[in-house]
Amino acid sequence: MDLKPTKPLSGFIELLPAQQRCFDTCAVRMQNVLKLAGFSMLDLPAIERAEVLTDKDNWDEIETQMFLFQKGDTKMGLRYDGTVGLSRYVAGHLNDLVFPFRASQFSKRYRGERAQRGRYREFYQMDLDIMGINSLSTNYDAEIISVIGRALDSVKEFIGPNIVLVGSRPFWDALFDYLEMNPEQKKEVFVLIDKKDKMGDEDFAEGLKDALGNTDKENTIKSVFTNGYTQFVNKSDKLDAAISELTGFMKVLEEMEVSNAKIDLSITRGLAYYTGLVFEFKLVNHPELGTAAGGGRYADLVGKFSKTKIIGVGAAIGFSRIFAAMLENNQIDLTQFENPIDVAVLVMGDNNVGYASRIVNALRAENIAAVSYLDTDKKFKNQIEYADKICARFSMIIGDNESENQLVALKNMQTGEQQSLSLADAIKLIKVA
Amino acid sequence: MDLKPTKPLSGFIELLPAQQRCFDTCAVRMQNVLKLAGFSMLDLPAIERAEVLTDKDNWDEIETQMFLFQKGDTKMGLRYDGTVGLSRYVAGHLNDLVFPFRASQFSKRYRGERAQRGRYREFYQMDLDIMGINSLSTNYDAEIISVIGRALDSVKEFIGPNIVLVGSRPFWDALFDYLEMNPEQKKEVFVLIDKKDKMGDEDFAEGLKDALGNTDKENTIKSVFTNGYTQFVNKSDKLDAAISELTGFMKVLEEMEVSNAKIDLSITRGLAYYTGLVFEFKLVNHPELGTAAGGGRYADLVGKFSKTKIIGVGAAIGFSRIFAAMLENNQIDLTQFENPIDVAVLVMGDNNVGYASRIVNALRAENIAAVSYLDTDKKFKNQIEYADKICARFSMIIGDNESENQLVALKNMQTGEQQSLSLADAIKLIKVA
Repeated sequence: MDLKPTKPLSGFIELLPAQQRCFDTCAVRMQNVLKLAGFSMLDLPAIERAEVLTDKDNWDEIETQMFLFQKGDTKMGLRYDGTVGLSRYVAGHLNDLVFPFRASQFSKRYRGERAQRGRYREFYQMDLDIMGINSLSTNYDAEIISVIGRALDSVKEFIGPNIVLVGSRPFWDALFDYLEMNPEQKKEVFVLIDKKDKMGDEDFAEGLKDALGNTDKENTIKSVFTNGYTQFVNKSDKLDAAISELTGFMKVLEEMEVSNAKIDLSITRGLAYYTGLVFEFKLVNHPELGTAAGGGRYADLVGKFSKTKIIGVGAAIGFSRIFAAMLENNQIDLTQFENPIDVAVLVMGDNNVGYASRIVNALRAENIAAVSYLDTDKKFKNQIEYADKICARFSMIIGDNESENQLVALKNMQTGEQQSLSLADAIKLIKVA
Repeated sequence: MDLKPTKPLSGFIELLPAQQRCFDTCAVRMQNVLKLAGFSMLDLPAIERAEVLTDKDNWDEIETQMFLFQKGDTKMGLRYDGTVGLSRYVAGHLNDLVFPFRASQFSKRYRGERAQRGRYREFYQMDLDIMGINSLSTNYDAEIISVIGRALDSVKEFIGPNIVLVGSRPFWDALFDYLEMNPEQKKEVFVLIDKKDKMGDEDFAEGLKDALGNTDKENTIKSVFTNGYTQFVNKSDKLDAAISELTGFMKVLEEMEVSNAKIDLSITRGLAYYTGLVFEFKLVNHPELGTAAGGGRYADLVGKFSKTKIIGVGAAIGFSRIFAAMLENNQIDLTQFENPIDVAVLVMGDNNVGYASRIVNALRAENIAAVSYLDTDKKFKNQIEYADKICARFSMIIGDNESENQLVALKNMQTGEQQSLSLADAIKLIKVA
C-alpha cells in the first residue's frame, strides 16, 4: 500500500513542541496585556454564511480568495478576517454588550489563494476592536495603538522593538478635493499612494502622470512626502480639519506615553472599510516581515446587519506572520522552551508503579511538572536516556529499595549528582533549583 | 437594503463575553493539568488533504459528514477529529519527537452533517495521546484516565464529579471466539453491545436472537451484563489473557489513586480504530450530556503514513459538548466571570486625557485591569453608568481638580464610598479590596 503524505498542505503551519510552546507563550503574554486593558476575548465561528462573508457584487474576486463550500442549500465559507464575524456578532448582541465595547479575537483565518512565501493559507491574527454607538472619540484610536505597542513589547525579547506609522485618509480626501480631482483620479492616485513603498519613486511619479496629466497636481501630491502635510494649512476647511485631527492625534499618543509613533502619509491600508486615521506597526529588526499589525477607524461597522450605527476602531496583529515566520526561520532562541519537564520519574518494575504514581501525583499537586516512564520493563539505561532526551531537570529513580523505604533517588540531570532522600526533601530541593 | 442575518449558522456556537471567560478559564485550568503531566500542546492545521482525512473505500459516507472543498486540483476538507492530523504529524516527525510522546490538542473540529440538538457542527475537543514505538505499557492507558479525571476535577465547581467506565475489546474478541461466532455475527453483536445502553434490554435480546439464533450463545452474552466477566476464567487462554489484563488494569488505576473507575463491558467506543482497553467518562450530575470524554488504545496509529509501528492510547474530552452546552443552558453560575475590570477611569474633558492615560498605564503595570472612558465630552452621569454596567469594582474620576493636584477620586462601586487620594494610595487600596 502506498503511504500517505506526512507534510501538511502548502501554506499551512505546524510547529514542533518547543516552537509551539514559544508561540503559545507569546500569545498568552500579549493576550494578558489586552485583558488588563479591558478587552473581552471572543471566539466566533470560523465558518460563516457566504452572504455574510461577502457581497454579491464582488463575489467572483472573493470566491477565488476564499475557501467556500455548500451543505444542503446553504453556501458557506471560512472567514478570511475577524471583522466580518465581529460585525455580525455585535449587530446580533447590541443589547447584551456594553459600549464602548472592547473586543479581541485570537483566531485562525483562511485564505484560499495559492500559498506564496510568507503568505499562509491558515494563519492566526490577534484582533483588537473598540466600538461605540453613534460616536467614538479618536482617543480610542490612540488607545488601540498604545495597547498594541505594549502587547508587542511584552514579547520584545523575541521580536525586538516596534514603531508605528500613522496615516490619515481624511487628509487625502481633503487634498484630492482641493486639487479638484475627479472620482476616477481619486481612486487611481489612492491606489498609487497605497503601493508607493513597493513601487519606488520613479514608477510612482509615472503613475501620477498617467492618472493626473497635470504637473502642478502631480508635484503637489509628491510634495506631501518631501515637505510634509502642514504646508496645506489654511488651504481649505476640509484640509484644516484633517490636519488638525492628525496633529492632535499625535499629541494624544504622546500623552499616552506612546513614544514610537510617527506620521507617514503613505500608510492608507488599502481600499477596505477604513474611513479615518490608519496605522501600521513595523518591527524595527525585522523589516522582512512587512507590517506586523495594522488598523484604523471605520465609520460604519455593522451597517449590513443592523440599522444601529456602530463606529469602530480596529486592528489586526499578524500573529502567524510574525511568530510562525520567525520560528520557521529559526530566528528565535528556543532554549527556554525546550525544557518544560521538572522531573522524569523512572520506574523499575511494575510492582513499583503504585509508589511511583503517588509520587507523580504529589509532585503535580505541588505545581511540579512530572512525567513517569511507565514501560517498567525497560532497562535503566533506556529510561535515563528518555529523561535526558526530554531535557528533564531532574530524574527520580523508583526501584524496590525506594518503594520499601519510602524514599526517592533524585538525580540532577545537569550536574549528574544523585542522592537518596524523602519525597518532601526532594520537593524542597526541586523547588529551589 | 435587506439586512443580513446576525445569527451564526445552526450548529455553530458563539458565547457572550462572560460565558467566553468561563469557557476559556476552564480550558486553561484543564490544560494546566495536562502540562504538569508532561503533555506537549500541539496546534495542527484544521484543513487536511482529503486523502489524509479518509480512505477511498468509505468516501461516500465520510463525504456527507465532512466539510470538503477543492482548490486547484487538490481536494481537501476540515478535520472531524484530532487523531487523523496527529497521525500524520507524528509520522512526519518521528526523529524530532521523544517517545513515549505525550501530546495534547485543544482545537476546533468540524462535522458537516445537519445540526441536531446538542450536536455541534463546529466544536472544541481536548485530546490527550501517549504514543510509543513498537510497544507501550497499558500503564499509560491508566495514566491517561488519571490525567483526564484530574483535568475534569480542576473544573469540578462547574461540572460536578465524574466517573469513568472501563471496557475491553479483547474480552469480547475472546468471548466471540470461545462462542465460535462467525465474522458477520461478531460484527453484528459488537454493534448491538455498542448500542445496548440506548436500545434497552428487550431490543438488545431481540437483536441477539436475530444475529445468533442460538439461545445458549444469546444467554452467555447477556450473562456478561448480569453475572460479570470473571465467570469466564479458565474457559480459554484468550479469555484468560483479556480478563487478567482488565483485572490488572483496574488495580493499576487504584494504585494511581483513581477512585472513580468501574468496569462496564458495554463500553466499546464503536467500530473505529480502538483495539484494546476503552473507557468513557460521565459527569455524575449531568447524564444529559452523555459521554464527557472517551478513548482507548490503538495498535497502529500511523500505519497509513509510515512503516514505523506506533502504538498509542488516546482520548478526546468533549469540551464544547460539556461547556458550550452547559453555558448555553445557563447551568453555570457566571457571577465570578461578569467582572473582569478592576478600575474604570472616567475622564472629564479632553485636557485630562494625558493625566488619565498615565494613570491607566500605571494601573495596568501593577496588574490591575483598567479601562478608560475616552469620550471625554460625555457627562459624568453617562460615564459612571458605563462603570456600573461593566461591573467595574472601582471607578476613578479624573477631572481638572485631580489633574492639577495629581490626585485621583476613587469610588468603590459596591459601597458607593468615594475619596480623594494619591495614585499610590489608590493602588494599595484597590489591591487589598
